[in-house]
Amino acid sequence: MSRIAYVNGRYLPQRDASVNVEDRGYQFGDGVYEVVHLHRGRFIDGERHLARLERSLGEIRIAMPMSQAALLHVLAEVARRNRVRDGLLYMQVTRGVARRDHAFPADAVLPAVVVTVRRIPPYPVDVDRWTASAVTFPDQRWARCDIKSTNLLPNVLARQAARERGAVEAILIDAGGMVTEGAATSFWIVDAKGRLRTRHLDQSILPGCTRGALLAAMQDAGVAFEERAFSETEMRAAQEAFITSATSFVKPIVAIDAQPVGDGRVGPLTRRLFALFARHVNGAANTA
Amino acid sequence: MSRIAYVNGRYLPQRDASVNVEDRGYQFGDGVYEVVHLHRGRFIDGERHLARLERSLGEIRIAMPMSQAALLHVLAEVARRNRVRDGLLYMQVTRGVARRDHAFPADAVLPAVVVTVRRIPPYPVDVDRWTASAVTFPDQRWARCDIKSTNLLPNVLARQAARERGAVEAILIDAGGMVTEGAATSFWIVDAKGRLRTRHLDQSILPGCTRGALLAAMQDAGVAFEERAFSETEMRAAQEAFITSATSFVKPIVAIDAQPVGDGRVGPLTRRLFALFARHVNGAANTA
Repeated sequence: MSRIAYVNGRYLPQRDASVNVEDRGYQFGDGVYEVVHLHRGRFIDGERHLARLERSLGEIRIAMPMSQAALLHVLAEVARRNRVRDGLLYMQVTRGVARRDHAFPADAVLPAVVVTVRRIPPYPVDVDRWTASAVTFPDQRWARCDIKSTNLLPNVLARQAARERGAVEAILIDAGGMVTEGAATSFWIVDAKGRLRTRHLDQSILPGCTRGALLAAMQDAGVAFEERAFSETEMRAAQEAFITSATSFVKPIVAIDAQPVGDGRVGPLTRRLFALFARHVNGAANTA
Repeated sequence: MSRIAYVNGRYLPQRDASVNVEDRGYQFGDGVYEVVHLHRGRFIDGERHLARLERSLGEIRIAMPMSQAALLHVLAEVARRNRVRDGLLYMQVTRGVARRDHAFPADAVLPAVVVTVRRIPPYPVDVDRWTASAVTFPDQRWARCDIKSTNLLPNVLARQAARERGAVEAILIDAGGMVTEGAATSFWIVDAKGRLRTRHLDQSILPGCTRGALLAAMQDAGVAFEERAFSETEMRAAQEAFITSATSFVKPIVAIDAQPVGDGRVGPLTRRLFALFARHVNGAANTA
């Protein structure tokens, strides 16, 4: 079965799903996106993703192309038409098509909306088989990483460097030696003193939806944590490390730059949080 | 007459000129571009633009989709089919279409190539009517501005800020208070001591083709200059200022943040360089 994509009001075979060459997403990266996890037919943290989409659009002054409810309907319809119940929904909104000029189009144009989906394996049950290794890479991104824009070339180059070094993720280090986040994930450590830490939110990292959902679940469960930046040196002394995202869930990082994290196995706190997030994903409360 | 665009081997009416939604240029900004000035049917600095395209592609490891000579042929054909003799040719090359994944596609895909053209007014003859004002704006771009990528959202936001403040260009100031360049132009001053200066080339600015051509013309003409960074403070004390690009040529900046530069009129050195570059554009030596 050929995949079906949504493009500006129409559901099309994905091979025919196209946008004009003067779509500002293509010429300027003038757009934002979200990836939402679909688990057994339910959106995980759908409200968080749609709220973040609306925030990202607001930061670059693109109007919401339709209500959050209408967008959710499109996501559900793309999943249904592709018969996907476990997958990743991708949605992208750009400023639309206009004659090329850096500044916003003088005449209002309609934002462009694209939604695609792809199937993924069932949710992982064994955290010891859900591990990955990472490498470090310089954070070369722009100053507004809190906006989930499609200006992703630095992330592409970082992920490619990770792959070539046999790793899954690149942990980004800023010019001051501080860890920001992964190329496409939030990053967490259990530091040398046993404190669970992830960087505080500022303009240098994305406010991760999975990060936010996990923090909320941790508060409910009484798990202590600190939202506080840590250095590369602190990271290298960590007892445990893991990444989170809508596609990684809670994923243990057992080696960084080919050096084991702690004893190189899944640590106890990571194990607990993997289970905690699995309960969140399998729970009914987050149906979108 | 409807405009004609070149897209991956085909010449199409521009309204039908489209790329797949999984073109990595659309999803990641994973591509580069050039804008070439066509003057009376001749490419201005065509070799510089094609060499820079090849360099940009090399830096992000996209193969040249065809030889420089073949690309020049496509540019000329797009101009011819649109009957444009004075215009701007836009060419964009992306990593091509692949299932969404940050890292490069595991299987080699063909780069995507798009070329469009638009008509512009004849080359300006009167420098006193070719002036513009600028504003300052924080440089929020990534760490590799030497690559002419389509990750242009910070440039878009800067240019929009300029427009809303009644100006044509945004002069970007880095976190250390140094001037980098314009949002889409190279930037030059005649400083308080009368020295013509533009920032040295590094990864924080684009190696401007017009900048390079003007420097070469200045060397031939015996005009002294310094490629050396200057601060915002030095800029505000400048006697003259101007921008250069394939679309601005040599364009006097007579006000910055609503304050006049020097006496607010075109300065003598800017006037001389406008004329010098006009000779370069009108000369026969640079036919591509």
